[in-house]
Amino acid sequence: MRGTSAIVGIGESTYYKAGAATESEFQLTCTAIRRAAEDAGISVKDIDGFVSYANDRNIPTRLATALGVRELRFSGLAWDGGGNGVAGALAVADAAVTAGYANYVVCYRGLAQGQFGRFGQARERGRMRAEGHEAFRIPFGVVAPATWYAIIARRFLYEHGTTENSLAEIALVSYDNAQRNPRAVRYGRPLTKEEYLRSRWIVEPFRLYDCCQESDGAAAVIVTSADRARDHPKKPAYIWAAAQGMEYRGAAGGAFGAGYNDPEFPTAHLKVVARQLWSRAGIGPQDVQVAQFYENFTGMVVMAICELGFADPDEVEDWLLAGNIRWPNGRLPINTSGGNLAEAYIHGFELVNEAVRQVRGESTSQVDNVYYSLVVAGPGALPASAAILSAER
Amino acid sequence: MRGTSAIVGIGESTYYKAGAATESEFQLTCTAIRRAAEDAGISVKDIDGFVSYANDRNIPTRLATALGVRELRFSGLAWDGGGNGVAGALAVADAAVTAGYANYVVCYRGLAQGQFGRFGQARERGRMRAEGHEAFRIPFGVVAPATWYAIIARRFLYEHGTTENSLAEIALVSYDNAQRNPRAVRYGRPLTKEEYLRSRWIVEPFRLYDCCQESDGAAAVIVTSADRARDHPKKPAYIWAAAQGMEYRGAAGGAFGAGYNDPEFPTAHLKVVARQLWSRAGIGPQDVQVAQFYENFTGMVVMAICELGFADPDEVEDWLLAGNIRWPNGRLPINTSGGNLAEAYIHGFELVNEAVRQVRGESTSQVDNVYYSLVVAGPGALPASAAILSAER
Repeated sequence: MRGTSAIVGIGESTYYKAGAATESEFQLTCTAIRRAAEDAGISVKDIDGFVSYANDRNIPTRLATALGVRELRFSGLAWDGGGNGVAGALAVADAAVTAGYANYVVCYRGLAQGQFGRFGQARERGRMRAEGHEAFRIPFGVVAPATWYAIIARRFLYEHGTTENSLAEIALVSYDNAQRNPRAVRYGRPLTKEEYLRSRWIVEPFRLYDCCQESDGAAAVIVTSADRARDHPKKPAYIWAAAQGMEYRGAAGGAFGAGYNDPEFPTAHLKVVARQLWSRAGIGPQDVQVAQFYENFTGMVVMAICELGFADPDEVEDWLLAGNIRWPNGRLPINTSGGNLAEAYIHGFELVNEAVRQVRGESTSQVDNVYYSLVVAGPGALPASAAILSAER
Repeated sequence: MRGTSAIVGIGESTYYKAGAATESEFQLTCTAIRRAAEDAGISVKDIDGFVSYANDRNIPTRLATALGVRELRFSGLAWDGGGNGVAGALAVADAAVTAGYANYVVCYRGLAQGQFGRFGQARERGRMRAEGHEAFRIPFGVVAPATWYAIIARRFLYEHGTTENSLAEIALVSYDNAQRNPRAVRYGRPLTKEEYLRSRWIVEPFRLYDCCQESDGAAAVIVTSADRARDHPKKPAYIWAAAQGMEYRGAAGGAFGAGYNDPEFPTAHLKVVARQLWSRAGIGPQDVQVAQFYENFTGMVVMAICELGFADPDEVEDWLLAGNIRWPNGRLPINTSGGNLAEAYIHGFELVNEAVRQVRGESTSQVDNVYYSLVVAGPGALPASAAILSAER
């Protein structure tokens, strides 16, 4: 199953701070898809499959009608959770193409938080019914993503002697990379460590700059079979391996966490995904040149780096502060577009576009000789996912 | 892609009239999945993929935790629309297994309308915003499924000289078959043509018995690779072909209909699906021995029968009244469990279980020598879908 499909086109709308877009979320999504088709050298009418995640509001029937798609042949969603579905969607698209259900699947995410509500604040969630695992969270004020993940990251920091310096490093690297990327919402807005440390608490240990942006925009890629991929203008980025996963964690786990009394409580839920991913790929962390780690919160990125096998948890702070994730000379430059923190938060899908650029040699923070380009999605949410793109089949 | 995967287990909860279940929808879903695993001769812990449709509330992470699944490896949803996703879900499951993402995918639907609200009545849909194609429906009182489909079926009847006798035949056949099926909610409640004709109008041309039931229950099947399928206790039902589709219909079409001024307005949206399905299967309607047609409304079943190629629209009434869909001697017995009308309305997924029984020889209205068993989903909704199960690979 290695490299049976490839990404042959990428596109995105203009990325905006939430509320700044003048187009509707649906229009932004159409724009991203049109540009991805153009980049692939196909007519948008030849798209015959649609895949997204996280209950994307931009449904295939409406998009297909607006775009003039001749015949829709596949429509699927990576199911359950939020931005953890980024690489899950690539898995669904790869499966659809590999099994022959469609020739050109557009895999995308449209998200205009300025038009449909923000993710970051507490709000009525099913009338805040404290049922299931929510019974262990809602009564204690753990009601929104920053609070969910803060207690997980806090425990990781405590157990492994990791400090705010590691969290800062993730944020500073993203902002640094964004200064070379004119698409980035935070382009021209560099961040210093002093500004990072002065920024306000959202919920300890997360300051303002530890949290992903809120954005309006859309991003899309065109997935086709490896055989067809060679006939397109741009260098294919083969879907070398993708994995979606969740281990059994006991009844308290629910969708978002291990049991609170579980030694594995401070997890990004990526260990099982990493095992699947490296096994399917037939390679290991040492073979990857560049990675995009979904930054919901910087602390979760630190944990994801460890769970994918790039650093030991007890040594990750030294590893980070030694410059390993910095462009251009680090061992593993990450979030080379600026990522969720500084390019835009398109529920993480913009990271896939950047992973493709790295394979093509088109990034504004291009890493030399990229053969394997990694995307890791939504650390801490379930089912977690990750994918490896490759330069050759 | 023919027969690369197979259904090796089926299960269902007790089926109830909506509101009559004492278990929760989630418990009903767990029961169906446990029974499907048992029927497949596997531990429920070995399920590693979850696929459903229509925004099933019973999400994989919660199910996997409750069922003790060891490792979840795939989680996907057939996307967009309602019961039209039945065969789309089989396509997603088949793709996941065929591409190697999971070994045992459970494909299922849990639906307790008595616990979460009914589909059949007008209600606030996004505050009834008459945007997009809804601008052509909501102001005229076309606000719920029966009204959406009534105008489509009415036009078909008008154009092809079809009468209430065709609609009655669909309902009577389903009720007749249900009298042999103790699982059916309407078991022991036979329906005569006189009772059918006396029943109240829901919206012309649909009477009470033209509309699917409202039920509480769940149904599930286990999909695995064709290679593994041979090692399971029950005879495999191979997924010979599946198709999901939508043709371009112009901007007025939206998710539910062709433009109102379109000559193709009275369609079940299955023509494109039929073309894909027969082409992928390498067979035609003449090769199928038994079929399960999703009965949202009887009129849509009549149209679906025509669009799949079993009868010409101008002759379908004669074809129906000649007994062609009656068990046991009709050319194509349909809805042999009683279907949505008389077994239970599990958003149509119970039809998949019955299609498998027909391949195995386990139906209470068993057709002789079944080699190809057809399921047609949600006529009139988009993207439409259908699948063919086969007795051999």
